[in-house]
Amino acid sequence: MPSPQQIRETMERYVKLMSAGDADGIAALYRDDATLEDPIGAPLVRGKAAILDWYRKSAGKVKLEITGPVRACGREAATPLQARAPAGPGKLTLIDIIDVMSFDDDGRIASMRAFWSADAIRVVDA
Amino acid sequence: MPSPQQIRETMERYVKLMSAGDADGIAALYRDDATLEDPIGAPLVRGKAAILDWYRKSAGKVKLEITGPVRACGREAATPLQARAPAGPGKLTLIDIIDVMSFDDDGRIASMRAFWSADAIRVVDA
Repeated sequence: MPSPQQIRETMERYVKLMSAGDADGIAALYRDDATLEDPIGAPLVRGKAAILDWYRKSAGKVKLEITGPVRACGREAATPLQARAPAGPGKLTLIDIIDVMSFDDDGRIASMRAFWSADAIRVVDA
Repeated sequence: MPSPQQIRETMERYVKLMSAGDADGIAALYRDDATLEDPIGAPLVRGKAAILDWYRKSAGKVKLEITGPVRACGREAATPLQARAPAGPGKLTLIDIIDVMSFDDDGRIASMRAFWSADAIRVVDA
């Protein structure tokens, strides 16, 4: 079973790789048979090849930041995050997210579900 | 399908009733066949009678507060919370929680899963 510390480190690596646009690095955090649902309600993405493809389209488009404690419970964890992206001159798009993940014995991500919705997207002054 | 606004109002009512120790009021927010897992990894509590019994033991023991945006996505939502309880003279126990809930068409809670763990409990000056 992964330790809370191991789960926190994986989450920190995940947001760093996501902000840097490193799709291969992110996919390497996942199990081969993992699933991804981002946002909740979107079609489920199954398996590492499909997950890599998904991150090739999305990684690097936003800067991702952990905004509060990682709640790690056994094989599962929930983490509050914020995504930021430029939204024209002097403006930023902000999205508040909660990622819920499960992990295998080796600490690889077995599933990822991202809670956010279009109605929660805000545009603010940069 | 419940609106994001309806889900937010239910969450606000939930924390108010929890802080006030109103177990019956909380149980009324749930479907008859709902399930509760608090914290993640604890035995699943099934059905409104068992849920009412669970809240009779826990409601009012902590002050619960929503600490960030409710991430509402269709029938599901994730909410960051903090529980506070007295921990002796001049001290407070704080627990950072994320509640993940699903809802039915009428906005009643169908399932509740609370992400927190003993290693995340902090004692601070009141």
